Amino acid sequence: MAAAAAACRLLRLAPRRLRNPRHSLFRTPLALSSGWRRYCAAAATPTGDAVGEFRRRIRVAEVKGGEDQGAAWVGKELTVRGWVRTCRAQRTVTFVEVNDGSCLSNMQCVLTPETEGYGQIDSINTGASVLVEGVVASSQGVKQKVELKVSKIIVIGESDPTSFPIQKKRASREFLRTVAHLRPRTNTFGAVARVRNALAYATHKFFQDSGFIWVSSPIITASDCEGAGEQFYVTTLLSNSAEGGCLVNSIPSKDGRVDWSQDFFCKPAFLTVSGQLNGETYASALSDIYTFGPTFRAENSNTSRHLAEFWMIEPELAFADLNDDMACASAYLQYVVKYILENCKEDMDFFDTWVEKGIIDRLNNVAEKNFVQMSYSDAIKLLIGSNKKFEFPVKWGLDLQSEHERYITEVAFGGSPVIIRDYPKEIKAFYMRQNDDGKTVAAMDLLVPRVGELIGGSQREERLDYLEARLDESNLNKDSYWWYLDLRRYGSVPHAGFGLGFERLVQFATGIDNIRDAIPFPRVPGSAEF
Amino acid sequence: MAAAAAACRLLRLAPRRLRNPRHSLFRTPLALSSGWRRYCAAAATPTGDAVGEFRRRIRVAEVKGGEDQGAAWVGKELTVRGWVRTCRAQRTVTFVEVNDGSCLSNMQCVLTPETEGYGQIDSINTGASVLVEGVVASSQGVKQKVELKVSKIIVIGESDPTSFPIQKKRASREFLRTVAHLRPRTNTFGAVARVRNALAYATHKFFQDSGFIWVSSPIITASDCEGAGEQFYVTTLLSNSAEGGCLVNSIPSKDGRVDWSQDFFCKPAFLTVSGQLNGETYASALSDIYTFGPTFRAENSNTSRHLAEFWMIEPELAFADLNDDMACASAYLQYVVKYILENCKEDMDFFDTWVEKGIIDRLNNVAEKNFVQMSYSDAIKLLIGSNKKFEFPVKWGLDLQSEHERYITEVAFGGSPVIIRDYPKEIKAFYMRQNDDGKTVAAMDLLVPRVGELIGGSQREERLDYLEARLDESNLNKDSYWWYLDLRRYGSVPHAGFGLGFERLVQFATGIDNIRDAIPFPRVPGSAEF
Repeated sequence: MAAAAAACRLLRLAPRRLRNPRHSLFRTPLALSSGWRRYCAAAATPTGDAVGEFRRRIRVAEVKGGEDQGAAWVGKELTVRGWVRTCRAQRTVTFVEVNDGSCLSNMQCVLTPETEGYGQIDSINTGASVLVEGVVASSQGVKQKVELKVSKIIVIGESDPTSFPIQKKRASREFLRTVAHLRPRTNTFGAVARVRNALAYATHKFFQDSGFIWVSSPIITASDCEGAGEQFYVTTLLSNSAEGGCLVNSIPSKDGRVDWSQDFFCKPAFLTVSGQLNGETYASALSDIYTFGPTFRAENSNTSRHLAEFWMIEPELAFADLNDDMACASAYLQYVVKYILENCKEDMDFFDTWVEKGIIDRLNNVAEKNFVQMSYSDAIKLLIGSNKKFEFPVKWGLDLQSEHERYITEVAFGGSPVIIRDYPKEIKAFYMRQNDDGKTVAAMDLLVPRVGELIGGSQREERLDYLEARLDESNLNKDSYWWYLDLRRYGSVPHAGFGLGFERLVQFATGIDNIRDAIPFPRVPGSAEF
Repeated sequence: MAAAAAACRLLRLAPRRLRNPRHSLFRTPLALSSGWRRYCAAAATPTGDAVGEFRRRIRVAEVKGGEDQGAAWVGKELTVRGWVRTCRAQRTVTFVEVNDGSCLSNMQCVLTPETEGYGQIDSINTGASVLVEGVVASSQGVKQKVELKVSKIIVIGESDPTSFPIQKKRASREFLRTVAHLRPRTNTFGAVARVRNALAYATHKFFQDSGFIWVSSPIITASDCEGAGEQFYVTTLLSNSAEGGCLVNSIPSKDGRVDWSQDFFCKPAFLTVSGQLNGETYASALSDIYTFGPTFRAENSNTSRHLAEFWMIEPELAFADLNDDMACASAYLQYVVKYILENCKEDMDFFDTWVEKGIIDRLNNVAEKNFVQMSYSDAIKLLIGSNKKFEFPVKWGLDLQSEHERYITEVAFGGSPVIIRDYPKEIKAFYMRQNDDGKTVAAMDLLVPRVGELIGGSQREERLDYLEARLDESNLNKDSYWWYLDLRRYGSVPHAGFGLGFERLVQFATGIDNIRDAIPFPRVPGSAEF
């Protein structure tokens, strides 16, 4: 059997001409295999056909993305597959802008009546998908260094110009949310998708290179730890199978109350609001970990800063204190900002021109300036000393509001990120480590210009007796936290971590105003379409 | 202000001795900043203190993980922070095995009565956390090349030997699931966590290097597309706030039926079972994308192969046919398998010895053999021709069962992965592209030894009329799919993709029998603890 397979391998075809598109896309699926079968038919045992090599396709980004903007490609043959952005017919030539999503730049394709497939010119409308073959040439245009002299065009999928929702003229972001399945075909949302992707990959690279282990914290939780205030229930008790909807009296109940013992998890279950507590369990074994997954808030906030479903990054460092935590948060933020400035130049230029003027300077500031830190108490003094009129009161013991945070980072520190640390314990979570003054906890918030708080973190209370006292003070049920307390019973270590809302980071990095435009399919009160 | 900050920067301390642990961990949080404040006090504007550099700590993996197993470290000072695995007192010396989670290997620490902190010897129990300082020395033991001659030990967190649930003796996997917060401190679960992490990172690397964009498909969906059969409801209508639980008659209703208009999303909402349809929208704009996120099944399956919550990887390739899809799936699987064989050697040796004998050979087979493909029709012939007695019938038109799949890959192809393609359309999903024979669709399943189906994929039906006909045939409501159909109305392209259950991959790569041990906190019927 193995011998037969080896014999078949010897008969393998010459390497597929990988850069020739006709080979991979438009061949008949079975064409390759039938030849094979003929050779192998004599074998006594089943052989099967070889699986081909993974296609390596040249994308527009690879041609135009380099320093020379494609000059090295002049004279070479190229095939581009993508979607038509615009089509301008002139007297002798027609210019078709084709985008393949790999970068913001289109490939300008020049058609003449001699071009094979020119007869389909009426189908070359905005939104149509095409395959164009030709030779790269220097362009006379000011917008690009190179263009494609097209020898052949195939319209793959048409796009009716009278109904295609995204025409050339600029559509509003509000409208585009109603066609979220098509909006990545616009410049703005294509750029957001690429920068979002780069931020995610840079996140993994940063933590992996620093020896952190990615841990998937659970999404569904029946643990009572999180407090059910703003949580979604996850249930199988509601069934829409009855004609016209879910009959209330078909919901399993006992003494007039929902009978959770009949639910999927045999008790109430929720969508997680944070993976931190679970993350701490793995940090207490593997030293440094991070989570990167979706989290949820059933908060009825119809604002430009809130989503019901968003992605969170939550690293947790063992054998670490608040200083280590602040240093990690700063290094992380600088790393991902540098990463997109270096790897998403074209998209960032686009945001700088069309979305937020000066964003590149703002991000360069973050990438290069030393971050500063100050205590909450000093921040209160600073705000009081500023003599500025704020809407919300400034007083030791009250939380900082967005206007205060932005004043500190934008005005007082002139655009530098600032970390505020050591907050009053009354305004912070029970798990934060109490400082020696008995009044404050080792919490920190990282503030950035324009967005305000981007990262929130703390050293965790690793002392069992302190933690139990805080649970009592907070009227929380210690029994629910048995496993969390176990981490303090068995080999407890000083540890610290932080949380970062990924869509806030995307907003910060792109200048996009509304958080609903920072995630492909936003979920907000009243809407979970697509 | 900027000048003041610059002046402060000039006064900055000499670089912290990064490898000296006492600096980063046990300093008083404010010690560093008070010196600063003195220098900056004269500045007119707020300055804050500098955030320190991110700690770079030497982990055991860095010392012992190299080719020389630590020989180059002999004579050097080293500090290790971790958890005690065992403590063996001999007449003159005490051996303490310390693990920091960075690798399977412990650091063998040798204590004598002269060691500073030796008085705490009674607290050095399994599970305790310690900091040990000393000098690396050649070891006489057969198990390791180097050990640490300890000059100082600090017990950071004790661990009561009478109650710590994970003692040295081997605990059953069933028991360890009840202490999922502590099980990563065992060899097996530490290794699973590291290999799982490596598989996840290799996944990102493979797709990023191939030009794919990571897209986060939504978790909550109110789209009717997915069919609510085995979906979890996501709701805010159930409130546990009433004394004793959720009163059924407090659930908003209308004419005896649940009033969805009062729910958070104003209609029934579910947890996603797949990100594919959403992924297709982004592939139709950015060309190649992949999702990597949690998906859910409310299936009442208490088996070793099913989870209610699991992670899925779903790439989608534009301008691609089934051959491209198979090639991508094969290249992907070979890449991640090679990655862990190269980067997780020690953990893989552990699995080979203790979990599944021969797993490294099995994986080498997958990494090196050419994958083969055959049609479903040929597979049926093969099974019938085998004259083997199967429990389930073999007949064209019936789906392949696990026993058939394993026979094909394990017996007929002697351990090679096999792709079966072109299944009867009746047993496959509506969105799969119909082949020219009118009877089959361009679907493919990738089968691997031991696990059976690991990957399932297809070319998608890109022709509007065919897709609408299939929706009708399947009694699905076309209106619900308006946006999915739009992709075929506007610039439709041939495209294909596949789905991979990440925990199945972890099982396949580690030999772990039960899928509940392949994810940190498994969710199954009746249990969503921690």
